[in-house]
Amino acid sequence: MIRFVSRRMLLVVGLAVAFLTGSAFAQQPADPLPSWNDSAAKTSITDFVARVTTEGSADFVPSAERIAAFDNDGTLWAEQPVYFQLAFAFDRVKALGEEHPEWKTQQPFKAILENDKAALAATGEKGLHEIMAVTHAGMSTEAFSRAVTGWIATARHPHFNRPYVSLVYQPMLELLAYLRANGFKTFIVSGGGIEFMRPWVEQVYGIPPEQVVGSSGATKFELDPDGRPMLMKEARIEFIDDGPGKPADINRFIGRRPILAFGNSDGDLAMLQWTAAGRGARFLGLVHHTDAVREYAYDRQSRIGKLDKALDAATARGWTVVDMKADWRMIFPSDGTSAAGR
Amino acid sequence: MIRFVSRRMLLVVGLAVAFLTGSAFAQQPADPLPSWNDSAAKTSITDFVARVTTEGSADFVPSAERIAAFDNDGTLWAEQPVYFQLAFAFDRVKALGEEHPEWKTQQPFKAILENDKAALAATGEKGLHEIMAVTHAGMSTEAFSRAVTGWIATARHPHFNRPYVSLVYQPMLELLAYLRANGFKTFIVSGGGIEFMRPWVEQVYGIPPEQVVGSSGATKFELDPDGRPMLMKEARIEFIDDGPGKPADINRFIGRRPILAFGNSDGDLAMLQWTAAGRGARFLGLVHHTDAVREYAYDRQSRIGKLDKALDAATARGWTVVDMKADWRMIFPSDGTSAAGR
Repeated sequence: MIRFVSRRMLLVVGLAVAFLTGSAFAQQPADPLPSWNDSAAKTSITDFVARVTTEGSADFVPSAERIAAFDNDGTLWAEQPVYFQLAFAFDRVKALGEEHPEWKTQQPFKAILENDKAALAATGEKGLHEIMAVTHAGMSTEAFSRAVTGWIATARHPHFNRPYVSLVYQPMLELLAYLRANGFKTFIVSGGGIEFMRPWVEQVYGIPPEQVVGSSGATKFELDPDGRPMLMKEARIEFIDDGPGKPADINRFIGRRPILAFGNSDGDLAMLQWTAAGRGARFLGLVHHTDAVREYAYDRQSRIGKLDKALDAATARGWTVVDMKADWRMIFPSDGTSAAGR
Repeated sequence: MIRFVSRRMLLVVGLAVAFLTGSAFAQQPADPLPSWNDSAAKTSITDFVARVTTEGSADFVPSAERIAAFDNDGTLWAEQPVYFQLAFAFDRVKALGEEHPEWKTQQPFKAILENDKAALAATGEKGLHEIMAVTHAGMSTEAFSRAVTGWIATARHPHFNRPYVSLVYQPMLELLAYLRANGFKTFIVSGGGIEFMRPWVEQVYGIPPEQVVGSSGATKFELDPDGRPMLMKEARIEFIDDGPGKPADINRFIGRRPILAFGNSDGDLAMLQWTAAGRGARFLGLVHHTDAVREYAYDRQSRIGKLDKALDAATARGWTVVDMKADWRMIFPSDGTSAAGR
């Protein structure tokens, strides 16, 4: 039986965001970041926000220029044991399997249908490309959006047995809302697919689709037989929004240099360097996954979310490194209990 | 002698926009579109805005979904006798000529340096590509932005002898401000280069850089010898935001279907079709250049801004066709007088 909680879950998270953005701040609560322990990481954030928002301060930045860029996987939500978009792709292969009896004997699909991780890994990059082609292309953008929305509403993380969308980081939801309440415009700049994120990020993070930057595939404009225009998703990748692709995409999509950037891996280093190189006050942050009990612990040697050069750069340059275990009082919304039960 | 007016001009236009956006609307003036004659075109706009902004109306659209997409060349500012970006490129070749003595004998540069239109035309698409490569690539994004800003501040249109930035359409400035005052988010979706527009559109149109969609070239992230990150502009074009590229770019950059789109040529037809195909109330508009005295008159046979199939579609589908001569009381800000003299 599929446990179906996510419409409600989306609503719960959405209301939490709305609450943080709206009424709570109107009343000037003592602490806009209640899930952050009172450590140096938290102070570095609140100090920065105070400096850039205080008129007359040497570091004051007008609201229109308060651009904040956040990586998604591993920074705003979890990314283990596989990027959630890949979990979506695997589930989609299974869902489409009925229409494709030939997949029972054909790799990489056979491996997915049989949950055979070793065989799947053996198909390598070529296998991955074929999986992405059948799950992310050959349909209209609208059909893809519906597939994502359906998956987000029903799929559950194998380890936490919670909807993926409930594996967002509560402290980062608070940070996003806190920044917006202080006149920042919050953007996602993710290696994940832009069309995989857009159907749900507005409700979950309060970030509208036009502020989502990510990897993207080509689309083709067509008129269907009734003359109705369609955008068909093609298998051709247009950009990989990772590593040096992140500053290039920030330039392409936003056209303004962020004053705050947050990531968690070496794939975010170029974005942090690009952000840091602007004139005036800057905030650079990294989420360091140090909590094997409540989430995961990984860094320099990790296959997913490798944090090595960026950690060295952060240390050398005094960027904020968030120690998940020490700095976060709570990891996920309604931590440790059923997401739907809040 | 170069007449240097544009910083002041930018300010004048900017103040006009601010005035329209802010104080004027706070006092509920009788007419938010004073440069529009009281004809069907104007009524079609105000009727549409009333319908989508009236809560409880069947056509009500929440503010977050009030996306308005505007073509730029020929829709928000003039585009004759050549696209202004091309005028910039020609001027840039002349400015760079001193460093390139070899251009004196080398096409297409020789033709530009000698103002030889026939020889320039003879170099065709290959010539154009070379011109764009030397004027739009091989420098950092910052250096390019400075070049555009300098040109905008000094260059003058050959026919009107006014700064290019003063050849924006006053009725469209009013429309942009009117839409924003009614909760719309205004975007440019232009075949012009995104990095050519971003340095000046915020002051002139009130549209921030992150709401500018356009054609774009590739950039490459590099660290300079001092370890300072740079984005270097390459000669490779990434997208042409024209024709079917417009809905693809709307999907890529905005991720939401506009409810209002305005263009002036066949290059805008796919954008209008895509916008029209959404569910709910839609506004589709075309600027028809019918005023040979105050601006230009051109449509079906024009080399630049050809309006043929889109005009037929507009007629067949009841879209709003703005007859510049009949519908616009005024074309440019401070029409007929020196822009700087306002």
